[in-house]
Amino acid sequence: MAQTISSFEELSLEGLRDIYDAEQKVLAAFPEMIEAASSNELKTAFREHREQTQEQVKRLETIFKKMGEEAKGKECPAARGLIAEAKQHIKEVERGPLLDAALIGAAQRFEHYEISAYGTARAFARRMGDEEAAKLLDTTLDEESQTDEKLNRIAEKVINPKAARA
Amino acid sequence: MAQTISSFEELSLEGLRDIYDAEQKVLAAFPEMIEAASSNELKTAFREHREQTQEQVKRLETIFKKMGEEAKGKECPAARGLIAEAKQHIKEVERGPLLDAALIGAAQRFEHYEISAYGTARAFARRMGDEEAAKLLDTTLDEESQTDEKLNRIAEKVINPKAARA
Repeated sequence: MAQTISSFEELSLEGLRDIYDAEQKVLAAFPEMIEAASSNELKTAFREHREQTQEQVKRLETIFKKMGEEAKGKECPAARGLIAEAKQHIKEVERGPLLDAALIGAAQRFEHYEISAYGTARAFARRMGDEEAAKLLDTTLDEESQTDEKLNRIAEKVINPKAARA
Repeated sequence: MAQTISSFEELSLEGLRDIYDAEQKVLAAFPEMIEAASSNELKTAFREHREQTQEQVKRLETIFKKMGEEAKGKECPAARGLIAEAKQHIKEVERGPLLDAALIGAAQRFEHYEISAYGTARAFARRMGDEEAAKLLDTTLDEESQTDEKLNRIAEKVINPKAARA
């Protein structure tokens, strides 16, 4: 039987560890995503988001430190599944605009996972009166939403028009 | 080696089959989520969203039919992971407001998965000039966003204040 989570602080910590693991998993997956992308614009977007993710990981580490907790992840099965889906596309979809369209879809699913996970974490931090953590999570949330919108623009303006002709 | 997806139509169909599988998985998970929730407001929200999901599945079936394709899912590893996470909470988190807060977080992660997946499917349908499918997906997208907001309200007003005292 797994350990019982019996306080709001423990539940918050659990949520942060889930996100920390998800971010580590996506950092490990970026090289394969960047290599598989054909569009330079998409490669650049992935590279930029990888750098942003490294900063987001540092923000989580700041929050763990402030909480007096070790910065460590807790296996996140959702992130594992999301990345498995991206890798399945790389195996199954023809390289070029079609795979690029599929990779954008996979990346946006991941962004949305993070938007909801960070949203919950921020609500919990605010509820516990930890305004400093809430602000750090806010910054990350803004970045995740901007990345999602950037991927939308690349899909609509650059990739999907070409993919639809494939 | 898996089959190669080499047209935009095939990629769209693949995306719809992924969502169809995700919706079946969440329908199968609802009874356990409803049973595990303590708050009547949350139980009701889950029940209402289960009914909504059944309608969303029918919309997908309408789209498959229009495409001349069989309504069938394709194993969605992300949905499997998202549901595994919800079930992990049920095992690990103390019943009551704390588990309710965790279940809302899990449900919102699932909503966001669907928001991004349906968003991609709608963009693809529109790109292919299938305005009828795009409108059906639009209706579902509105429902998913409304459900996400409703869960936010329940978390902020009903559950989290109690959970923070746990």
